[in-house]
Amino acid sequence: MSAPFFGDLTPLRYEGPETDNPLAYRWYNPDQVVLGKRMEEHLRFAACYWHSFCYAGSDPFGAATLERPWFGGDAMDAARRKADAAFALFDILGVPFFTFHDRDIAPEGGNFGESLRNVRSIAELLARKMEQSKVRLLWGTANLFSHPRYMAGAASNPDPDVFAYAAATVKNCMDVTRELGGQNYVLWGGREGYETLLNTDLRQELDQLGRFLNLVVEYKHRTGFTGTILIEPKPKEPTKHQYDFDVASIYGFLCRYGLEREVKVNIEANHATLAGHSYEHEIALANALGIFGSLDVNRGDPLLGWDTDQFPNNVPDMALAVYHVLQGGGFTTGGMNFDAKIRRQSLAAEDLVAAHVGGIDTCARALLAAARMIEDGKLAGAVQQRYAGWQNPAAQAMLAGKESLEAIADRVAQGGIEPRPVSGRQEQLENLVNRYV
Amino acid sequence: MSAPFFGDLTPLRYEGPETDNPLAYRWYNPDQVVLGKRMEEHLRFAACYWHSFCYAGSDPFGAATLERPWFGGDAMDAARRKADAAFALFDILGVPFFTFHDRDIAPEGGNFGESLRNVRSIAELLARKMEQSKVRLLWGTANLFSHPRYMAGAASNPDPDVFAYAAATVKNCMDVTRELGGQNYVLWGGREGYETLLNTDLRQELDQLGRFLNLVVEYKHRTGFTGTILIEPKPKEPTKHQYDFDVASIYGFLCRYGLEREVKVNIEANHATLAGHSYEHEIALANALGIFGSLDVNRGDPLLGWDTDQFPNNVPDMALAVYHVLQGGGFTTGGMNFDAKIRRQSLAAEDLVAAHVGGIDTCARALLAAARMIEDGKLAGAVQQRYAGWQNPAAQAMLAGKESLEAIADRVAQGGIEPRPVSGRQEQLENLVNRYV
Amino acid sequence: MSAPFFGDLTPLRYEGPETDNPLAYRWYNPDQVVLGKRMEEHLRFAACYWHSFCYAGSDPFGAATLERPWFGGDAMDAARRKADAAFALFDILGVPFFTFHDRDIAPEGGNFGESLRNVRSIAELLARKMEQSKVRLLWGTANLFSHPRYMAGAASNPDPDVFAYAAATVKNCMDVTRELGGQNYVLWGGREGYETLLNTDLRQELDQLGRFLNLVVEYKHRTGFTGTILIEPKPKEPTKHQYDFDVASIYGFLCRYGLEREVKVNIEANHATLAGHSYEHEIALANALGIFGSLDVNRGDPLLGWDTDQFPNNVPDMALAVYHVLQGGGFTTGGMNFDAKIRRQSLAAEDLVAAHVGGIDTCARALLAAARMIEDGKLAGAVQQRYAGWQNPAAQAMLAGKESLEAIADRVAQGGIEPRPVSGRQEQLENLVNRYV
Amino acid sequence: MSAPFFGDLTPLRYEGPETDNPLAYRWYNPDQVVLGKRMEEHLRFAACYWHSFCYAGSDPFGAATLERPWFGGDAMDAARRKADAAFALFDILGVPFFTFHDRDIAPEGGNFGESLRNVRSIAELLARKMEQSKVRLLWGTANLFSHPRYMAGAASNPDPDVFAYAAATVKNCMDVTRELGGQNYVLWGGREGYETLLNTDLRQELDQLGRFLNLVVEYKHRTGFTGTILIEPKPKEPTKHQYDFDVASIYGFLCRYGLEREVKVNIEANHATLAGHSYEHEIALANALGIFGSLDVNRGDPLLGWDTDQFPNNVPDMALAVYHVLQGGGFTTGGMNFDAKIRRQSLAAEDLVAAHVGGIDTCARALLAAARMIEDGKLAGAVQQRYAGWQNPAAQAMLAGKESLEAIADRVAQGGIEPRPVSGRQEQLENLVNRYV
Ligand SMILES: [Co+2]
Ligand SMILES: [Co+2]
Ligand SMILES: [Co+2]
Ligand SMILES: [Co+2]
Ligand SMILES: [Co+2]
Ligand SMILES: [Co+2]
Ligand SMILES: [Co+2]
Ligand SMILES: [Co+2]
Repeated sequence: MSAPFFGDLTPLRYEGPETDNPLAYRWYNPDQVVLGKRMEEHLRFAACYWHSFCYAGSDPFGAATLERPWFGGDAMDAARRKADAAFALFDILGVPFFTFHDRDIAPEGGNFGESLRNVRSIAELLARKMEQSKVRLLWGTANLFSHPRYMAGAASNPDPDVFAYAAATVKNCMDVTRELGGQNYVLWGGREGYETLLNTDLRQELDQLGRFLNLVVEYKHRTGFTGTILIEPKPKEPTKHQYDFDVASIYGFLCRYGLEREVKVNIEANHATLAGHSYEHEIALANALGIFGSLDVNRGDPLLGWDTDQFPNNVPDMALAVYHVLQGGGFTTGGMNFDAKIRRQSLAAEDLVAAHVGGIDTCARALLAAARMIEDGKLAGAVQQRYAGWQNPAAQAMLAGKESLEAIADRVAQGGIEPRPVSGRQEQLENLVNRYV
Repeated sequence: MSAPFFGDLTPLRYEGPETDNPLAYRWYNPDQVVLGKRMEEHLRFAACYWHSFCYAGSDPFGAATLERPWFGGDAMDAARRKADAAFALFDILGVPFFTFHDRDIAPEGGNFGESLRNVRSIAELLARKMEQSKVRLLWGTANLFSHPRYMAGAASNPDPDVFAYAAATVKNCMDVTRELGGQNYVLWGGREGYETLLNTDLRQELDQLGRFLNLVVEYKHRTGFTGTILIEPKPKEPTKHQYDFDVASIYGFLCRYGLEREVKVNIEANHATLAGHSYEHEIALANALGIFGSLDVNRGDPLLGWDTDQFPNNVPDMALAVYHVLQGGGFTTGGMNFDAKIRRQSLAAEDLVAAHVGGIDTCARALLAAARMIEDGKLAGAVQQRYAGWQNPAAQAMLAGKESLEAIADRVAQGGIEPRPVSGRQEQLENLVNRYV
Repeated sequence: MSAPFFGDLTPLRYEGPETDNPLAYRWYNPDQVVLGKRMEEHLRFAACYWHSFCYAGSDPFGAATLERPWFGGDAMDAARRKADAAFALFDILGVPFFTFHDRDIAPEGGNFGESLRNVRSIAELLARKMEQSKVRLLWGTANLFSHPRYMAGAASNPDPDVFAYAAATVKNCMDVTRELGGQNYVLWGGREGYETLLNTDLRQELDQLGRFLNLVVEYKHRTGFTGTILIEPKPKEPTKHQYDFDVASIYGFLCRYGLEREVKVNIEANHATLAGHSYEHEIALANALGIFGSLDVNRGDPLLGWDTDQFPNNVPDMALAVYHVLQGGGFTTGGMNFDAKIRRQSLAAEDLVAAHVGGIDTCARALLAAARMIEDGKLAGAVQQRYAGWQNPAAQAMLAGKESLEAIADRVAQGGIEPRPVSGRQEQLENLVNRYV
Repeated sequence: MSAPFFGDLTPLRYEGPETDNPLAYRWYNPDQVVLGKRMEEHLRFAACYWHSFCYAGSDPFGAATLERPWFGGDAMDAARRKADAAFALFDILGVPFFTFHDRDIAPEGGNFGESLRNVRSIAELLARKMEQSKVRLLWGTANLFSHPRYMAGAASNPDPDVFAYAAATVKNCMDVTRELGGQNYVLWGGREGYETLLNTDLRQELDQLGRFLNLVVEYKHRTGFTGTILIEPKPKEPTKHQYDFDVASIYGFLCRYGLEREVKVNIEANHATLAGHSYEHEIALANALGIFGSLDVNRGDPLLGWDTDQFPNNVPDMALAVYHVLQGGGFTTGGMNFDAKIRRQSLAAEDLVAAHVGGIDTCARALLAAARMIEDGKLAGAVQQRYAGWQNPAAQAMLAGKESLEAIADRVAQGGIEPRPVSGRQEQLENLVNRYV
């Protein structure tokens, strides 16, 4: 059943690269086997609730432009209509997963208890809908940034009551996520940062955040939740500075609070670039540090300084991201979540569907390219060969800490070591990549 | 004695804010007591060797513009003339410290041994000069980025021989630094990063870096060097991405390799802003994490995307940086090093002197402003009051991990906790700061 | 009379730099004579309607935080209460001017006619209030960016009906501005740009914009409006690219459509920096091109990529901006409009007042510094001396086009001309500036 | 004949997308007819002299890494060896054009006359080589930025002798360009800007620049040079601000000095992005303003703030640039010049060749994609349809200035015009583009 908003759209089909049908997949063929695994299992796509069903098209300089049949009227009733539309889109797209914030699915109530009951009530509706649909829950998360109470942070708020309120909210949202079979639980600290250092005690706020995350991890273990706890880095926006700036910052934070084996990262393309990193850098670094978890796939505009959350459309760029995911072993509990929103002028239902089609096809085509890179092996081979000297036993010993600085210095002085530079072959490797995309 | 380059300039004097003399201090009065300590002891200024005595005015699009009497001729002879000029300037400025890279003071030799002897020979000259001067060594460092052998990294080079060469070079430079009474030893990893991920093994390179830094720390302890080992963060430039991106990244790196109690950071203003942070953010974060060490004082141009290393000249900006240094207890072994270079068009000897005068006065005036902030106490008081709720025993218990997520959730649900937002008073605090500057 | 929101605040007084009163002027002393003119006449401050009375504290990730007594209820009734509050603040601040968009003062109606009547009705109320107050209208402007009809541009919309609607709206707003004695009329083309080139006909859109502006100028002359028509540059945000990118772009646009003697620019600090320029650059360039009109004073955050519109607080920065205004002869019909908004967490009425106090004092102190620069004459003298060679008659002839390329080449070849570089003295001039601030 | 540097490389061949040969063209097939024209005639590739034959691999933090057999020894002799290598590469690549600065081909002499003779002497050598080769000259240009005499500008220098020296140099370089059959003459004002406004007279410098460009244009006409005079925009670097900031700025400048029909622009990808614009924006704007001339093809790194001048490698990005070139009618005298340099670590001759191969193939593949866009017509059709309302006679009349603001306002008020927003279809158009690339 399709909600009326999407007209008579039926589930999209794979029709191959030559199709003229704008609402068919040209590259995403869920059952196609790539590197020994079905495409769907590789990519684990998720549609998100917030951008697609809550965003009304406003921006800081303009009012809502998107008219949706599920907007307006009694808030809980609207939430139920929204769920209808969401599941209709999930089914049309055929994505295996979805994601949500508690506030996306159910309205804020008049007090904590009512908010909790609203979420629980809609969660029960979602559970029933999930029985009728193939879509599963990739992750849930609590919105700890939109309500004014969080304006100065949730876990890092100067008011301990806000910390407690946020903690209670997360407990509820973790419960719901667990009950809906969520495979991960995500924290994005949109207000966990500061607007001005002038009113901020950095050390205190970091300690609060560390405690908060430990509460979450302890609760996960106590409740037997087997999903992964994920933090999503973002450097700034809405706040001037966010503590979860990037993967490297989060790793340090996790170490400081004893969590580096408990928590992983959900990396978003647009947040990577806002932090001054490429998407593939963040993925590769998370792999290197052992904290890679999941992806938010979207794109920013490299010429704009805010989070545009556009649907991805550049295959060569995405291919490198997927390549690093595959090099790290692929997803376990994670997946590719479209934290991507249609443009404010994309008013039509067809725009919303087409945006996902384009994003999904971009990723699928990127997977095919990345698989070719891996099957060919030339790219990885070039890297391996570049570091081949470190396979030498003496080099291994030095790296293992079996040689002191003095000993090394003696060896250099007496061995007549005078290293000669070797080409990095960057352009040749770039050309090589262009063979696959 | 003044080298002829500086004409008949004698040591600069403090003449107060009203003087018309462009080559006198208007704010820097070394013996003036501020917050119970002499200005000189607070600020611990250092002049640097590289920008002031090695930079010849070239940029990526243009040739050298600065003609210096110590340029040219036999390289070791030039190095000795350069030392004369350097100590002449140190004496004219009256700064208590200087800093250098091995390559600044002595030329590269034809092989490792000759380079080492060149450095050692000039170091002996510097030692003799230091006996005649009041200037001391704030820190030494090895240049592991200019020579082509380091083009793909020093410690993080794919070639283990380069790692060894760099290690041997650092050993030598640490020896010289220790012998000259250096109070710190600095590592700036200008090439410890990558140009393209396509040819890079991130994990391998991080492990190499971790080993390298451990070698340095072990050697420090073995030789009884009592100075501080410092890493200087910089996010990019010359490479596309440097592992020592910022204070938060370095903290994670130190934790990963067991060094968070051994190594501190030397924070540069221009590197902070290139990484997307304010100078005071990096200082405050280093304080919060317990790794604050020393400062490179300069400024970037917020509208340019590279390291301009300009002399600081904005007192309100610098006052906030100094305020955070003071809030963290002030410098111990660290100081304020002018990693700042005159503009390419500033051809005259007077330009070089005046640039330092301006930078030093900016910092001195900033110190006076910061001291007023501290003496008045209103700024710190406002912060303290904002977090006052956390002094509450229940809040303290929650922060100390004595309450589970479930217990907190119960307390919120049953206690009717509904936090009310409180003004952050940002503009009022900004106005307050403007009273002191 | 003060609206209740501001408690019992009475008009702010000048109390001098030493006062402890956070709601007194420390530097702004309207009657103080500077360079032969009263401070108030130099600075011509304006408070704006939109940020101070319409902004409710929302941002792209969070809901409204600011509760104002004039929000809510019947829209026209709210507009009247808002006018009360606005004039209360104008009187408390003692600013000589205010500014507004039509949509700030009166709500959108159900159709064009009703919107027009709403604006006209409130304009009459403002006229009555202006009789009771000393505040005058610096400029009016039409909001052609918030309503969904403008989502793809106003004058540059692909739909000619939107062009017509915008034109009709501007006519009405110009009428109201003229009737209220406005000294300028401003156009800010927030949506005059594109989101994607893929759906854009650049040439067509520029021609539409050119026509629109000519309509405005023709109407101005026909109605005898003696104010200045101003365009406000902004490079991007809300759109990806705006045609009024910066002062240089606008100058080219004006030339293309024959308007370079008819229209001037209203330069905003935050828009300058978003375009990659300093505030003083844009002012100096507008002066050089003869199109300087007025200023929006605020500041951006150099580390954030969007328009933060913060109140200015850095005196040295502002002093250079004011210096260039004074060098260009000062304001005629223009002034300094606080297009600046309090932070989302600044909930209290006192925050709104204090923010203006801080901004006003920053500008006043900057004026005093700029006046010292001008009175001293050293800065301008240094510039004049640098170009002194061009006063030479031969140089003047060459600049006047009296010498051909061949003749110049002959003169160089035969005259043995080999120019020698001369120091640009940048640091010395920066130090000089620091004497005045 | 191949210079020994390139070993036994023979002219590269087109081998099609499936070849494994890293030094063959996979997409560039000069004789392949696309949209009725040979690929070679569409793309008009040029190799540049400076990056490929003058760059030695240094960067602001490191020494030269590239050892070239033509470096070193007597300067004129080296220049001749360099010419051998250059023509060897031109022949290997099979590009139809090359480009140079005077200083690239011949060394600075001891005085103006000697520099001139050096250039003339090597130009004669190039003329002889061109007789043996198929390569022609796309454009010449004078280096007015590297020598210290230009540190404060060439045409915009405070010293009129530098203006004269630059003018004489340009005359000579124009003569040589004309004599070598150059199809354009380019000016890039690398130092035509300022480092600090504190020592700058903006208006004076703009007038100098305007005069300089008029001298060039007058000389062009007097000598019967039929090529195009081109300005290359760049916003900053090496200076803090350059007057030729971007296409829009240059258009205004040309109008101011009466040159908008005489001079066109040479647009570089990396300069576009440094100015905050996409490459295709600058091309489309130049088309709209009637000043499109030629292209420097390269790419920047969107995460780095300086001119990296990398070889292009992203086909979808380049396809949009080529699409706009074709939409504007394609090149006349212009072409695609590889103002692109190999990375500092790309030491091998093969790297230099491969870099060009990759760049050329990227552009060729982009041409094929752009041709598909044009042949299909859907993209242009969507734009045309979006503006279809403007074909309406009433809309045309309004645009033509036949309706006053009052008349339009009346029409809106009485006609009940209430425009309804229409979808911009951005994602659908992005998906459409992905069908072609
Ligand atoms: Co996200
Ligand atoms: Co995002
Ligand atoms: Co530094
Ligand atoms: Co630096
Ligand atoms: Co504004
Ligand atoms: Co603004
Ligand atoms: Co470039
Ligand atoms: Co170029």
